[in-house]
Amino acid sequence: MNNYYIGIDLGGTNIKSAIFNTNFEKISEHRVQTHADKGSDVVLSRMLNSIEELLKSSRIYASEILCMGIGVPGLLDTKTGISKFSPNFSKWENVHVSQWFETKLKIPTFIDNDVRMNLYGEWYYGEGKGKSNVVLITLGTGLGSGVIIDGHVLYGTTGSVGEIGHMNMYRSGRPCRCGSYGCLGRYVSAIGMLRTLKEKLQNGNTSVIHDWVQGDYDKITAKMVSDAFDKGDKVAIDTFYETGELLGYGLANVINLYNPECIIIGGGMAAAGERLLKSARKIVDTHALQISNDTCEIVIASLGDSSGMLGAAIYASNHRRKEK
Amino acid sequence: MNNYYIGIDLGGTNIKSAIFNTNFEKISEHRVQTHADKGSDVVLSRMLNSIEELLKSSRIYASEILCMGIGVPGLLDTKTGISKFSPNFSKWENVHVSQWFETKLKIPTFIDNDVRMNLYGEWYYGEGKGKSNVVLITLGTGLGSGVIIDGHVLYGTTGSVGEIGHMNMYRSGRPCRCGSYGCLGRYVSAIGMLRTLKEKLQNGNTSVIHDWVQGDYDKITAKMVSDAFDKGDKVAIDTFYETGELLGYGLANVINLYNPECIIIGGGMAAAGERLLKSARKIVDTHALQISNDTCEIVIASLGDSSGMLGAAIYASNHRRKEK
Repeated sequence: MNNYYIGIDLGGTNIKSAIFNTNFEKISEHRVQTHADKGSDVVLSRMLNSIEELLKSSRIYASEILCMGIGVPGLLDTKTGISKFSPNFSKWENVHVSQWFETKLKIPTFIDNDVRMNLYGEWYYGEGKGKSNVVLITLGTGLGSGVIIDGHVLYGTTGSVGEIGHMNMYRSGRPCRCGSYGCLGRYVSAIGMLRTLKEKLQNGNTSVIHDWVQGDYDKITAKMVSDAFDKGDKVAIDTFYETGELLGYGLANVINLYNPECIIIGGGMAAAGERLLKSARKIVDTHALQISNDTCEIVIASLGDSSGMLGAAIYASNHRRKEK
Repeated sequence: MNNYYIGIDLGGTNIKSAIFNTNFEKISEHRVQTHADKGSDVVLSRMLNSIEELLKSSRIYASEILCMGIGVPGLLDTKTGISKFSPNFSKWENVHVSQWFETKLKIPTFIDNDVRMNLYGEWYYGEGKGKSNVVLITLGTGLGSGVIIDGHVLYGTTGSVGEIGHMNMYRSGRPCRCGSYGCLGRYVSAIGMLRTLKEKLQNGNTSVIHDWVQGDYDKITAKMVSDAFDKGDKVAIDTFYETGELLGYGLANVINLYNPECIIIGGGMAAAGERLLKSARKIVDTHALQISNDTCEIVIASLGDSSGMLGAAIYASNHRRKEK
């Protein structure tokens, strides 16, 4: 009999699950659609099926799993394992995630915020390895972040440390779901950048992207903006430049407030790489405090979309050790 | 023979020193001008004289002092006890503060940033008592801050966590000594607020303050702005309103990024109280994330200008315990 961990990354679109050995090497992985609109019963059952599939295909018994970690988006209580609210999930209030799995599988189960799970992954095995001061910023549909200072992953009063996406960038700006205006995430995220691009197209600027989607702007993706950028398309270049500049002001504030030695850019939009980061770095170099900036590097995440599963497994193993 | 601690608050204007018993009750206190323009030799000697004065008047022997803490403004290395650079001090580079006092007095001496020493004071005996997530913002000549999250005082890569004063508020704004533009501290601080007021006067607005200083605007103090506010002076009211609004945007970012349960406003400008905080609270309530804001109170520091000395003594006693 061997020992293993399970790490799960619960996303609005996909459930990604993996089994790791005690060296955190991935043994097997399983991905399935979340069906987040169908309520917590359906989603939990789909996660359970995914785990059972994983165990079966790997010929591993549930009794060999030391513990399990799950990254859950939204607001949660890590101590009780209750997911209180998750913005993109229907019928999802006060879901007793840990208890549900512990009853079904008899495996100790720990939950934390999805971005923090990604942070644990990058901290232990990615770009944050060996560092004590790390900020991970995930640029996906929205903008999330997780923060490590002086070797501690930060939580704060309600576990809400690092809501960088709601940093106020314009006194009057785009309205945000949070009730405020001009939040960073309304501009620097896939949704934000696409809105900036669409505004340019609607103002009559010509772009190859218009032809690619035959005028149906809802079909534009972040990937298309990168492709158009590479073809020298002015609208795409301006969009990345402006989005990157605002990201730069946000990063300058992150450097001034958190003093990290490393800012890791992850999430789907990280694929844009220097297309986005070039103008960001220029703003950081002229607006962040020199001593803090001189000791901080800005890098692209190296684990891709596996860091959530890996981080969840690491997180669970850390908590198991604490409880013993 | 009894046991005591010494705490020193080294400011650009005054050296404040006090002896505390092991319950951190103040036994005696001594204040003397710093003469920061005269170089490190003069300042260190003046501190030493101040300590000797204190010991003599309290009839306490140096051998009864368990250890000593000194709050030093600027950049420093807490481990080696070296003050690297201090913006308002002349001939002050790489000053071996701890070593100098340990040689002269044979008392173990620990240094840290002056704002963090204030934070220790307010955390142990002031408004932060019993809390695990606290941000202290000192509004004096400039804007400083210290941060506690999850029970840890944060330092970061170069000990520069919490440089809130350099948060970018305007893409193009007032130039700052840091090389950037539009930094929060250029508006929200005694110097910043007075500049806002002077701009209004120079634009031809009438105010009682003009008469008080007979047109010599360099004589205007923050206290005068409070006094004029209380007399219903429109320029003073507008100045507090605008300064408070910008403070509010800054505090909303502080709440979103640090998720504290308590923000303590200290420093000389804290005396303005709700004159300044009223418009700040309004912005915070409409711009910070609701859950983080609902769990955060904004209060005025309760220890006044004694918190630096007290915090330095507490800090020293904590470090002595660690080293034993």
